[in-house]
Amino acid sequence: MPTLALLRHGQSQWNLENRFTGWVDVDLTPEGEAQASQSGRLLADSGVPFDRLYTSVQTRAIRTGQIAIEAMGQAWLPVTKDWRLNERHYGGLTGLDKAETSARHGEAQVKVWRRSYDIPPPPLAPGGEWDLSQDRRYAGVAIPATESLKDTLARVTPYWDAEIAPALKAGRNLIIAAHGNSLRAIVKLLFAVPDDRITEVEIPTGNPLLLDLDGALHVKAARYLDAARAQPLPLPA
Amino acid sequence: MPTLALLRHGQSQWNLENRFTGWVDVDLTPEGEAQASQSGRLLADSGVPFDRLYTSVQTRAIRTGQIAIEAMGQAWLPVTKDWRLNERHYGGLTGLDKAETSARHGEAQVKVWRRSYDIPPPPLAPGGEWDLSQDRRYAGVAIPATESLKDTLARVTPYWDAEIAPALKAGRNLIIAAHGNSLRAIVKLLFAVPDDRITEVEIPTGNPLLLDLDGALHVKAARYLDAARAQPLPLPA
Repeated sequence: MPTLALLRHGQSQWNLENRFTGWVDVDLTPEGEAQASQSGRLLADSGVPFDRLYTSVQTRAIRTGQIAIEAMGQAWLPVTKDWRLNERHYGGLTGLDKAETSARHGEAQVKVWRRSYDIPPPPLAPGGEWDLSQDRRYAGVAIPATESLKDTLARVTPYWDAEIAPALKAGRNLIIAAHGNSLRAIVKLLFAVPDDRITEVEIPTGNPLLLDLDGALHVKAARYLDAARAQPLPLPA
Repeated sequence: MPTLALLRHGQSQWNLENRFTGWVDVDLTPEGEAQASQSGRLLADSGVPFDRLYTSVQTRAIRTGQIAIEAMGQAWLPVTKDWRLNERHYGGLTGLDKAETSARHGEAQVKVWRRSYDIPPPPLAPGGEWDLSQDRRYAGVAIPATESLKDTLARVTPYWDAEIAPALKAGRNLIIAAHGNSLRAIVKLLFAVPDDRITEVEIPTGNPLLLDLDGALHVKAARYLDAARAQPLPLPA
């Protein structure tokens, strides 16, 4: 039975400043680094022989995964990085803090963008500070101008199907170090969470979610490795 | 024209203690980490748009490469790790410091093992502290019991031919973060260094060697990125 560990990156500088980050490549804070180390110790203690780490092309997720496998004493694990595991792109909200966003758009509207499944924020204006069209890492990628969670799911799903699911079906034990919304997308796929429930799912940082799967990738067991800090998974039974 | 950067890992704990390390998975010291950061800054300043990092499956080389690409602001670069880029396996000398080794084997003999091309030290006894046969990272690998530099070359070469040379010929700019002897093997391949000259080649730590290659992988230009600390390359003209 393959095992999948979902690991959400720890605190970043913009988490601290309460700003919409999305695809901006903000690094971890020292607290975020400590959360990644702690996650690595928990993963090592689980005793699962992991085979590979998947992560996004964003520094905060890459470093979370890297710090974790170093803390596991398994820096040698192969790592695959792909933009399709990136955080949801927050479009025109990128870079704004919550107070600015509410002042500009109204609190109710911001809540819709944060909590709806299929309503994207306004697009990011091209050519500004957060425009990524010149970023080499996205060469050949159709960079979105904004995303709803549904849009995020629409690019996570083909990657899951093409890369991650076949590795799991081949019996590999995998770690995915990623972001709140790309991990939500994976949880939605695995647990068949309805559209109107998925934004309730909140994977905590620094506490890997371990999923035991069967050969058809049905979830047979799910547990947070730090049981004392586990949050109930608001998932369909 | 593809560019290849050769990056030797910085100081490890056993470098500091003057012990034969080989395949033992010793970590960097803080000084070794600082050398890796410095290498990353030099690589960034070179302006070369690198495409991929290759490294061994040993923590000190992996972390050197990782710290370097983070210092470059390019943590997103794909990383490929392979045991064939590991350090030379020092067989029965593994774990001994230089004084112990000389006391046990005589200084002249130790010099032969360190400086000859094709004379391996005695094999590592199986089942001891440094036996790696139970190490998951080497599953499926015929772990050597000892290696001469020639033996190291014999496993670096097929990897070079199968993985690294084709990427360079396709125009990719690559970084190889590795070890004194696996880098010597690559220098021997690229510069056609004679067998009796190759152990004179000493790639310094913390100072990447940048090689501009042509389409047939002939070296057109070679320079250390920190010119002030460059050592003359004792290579055939």
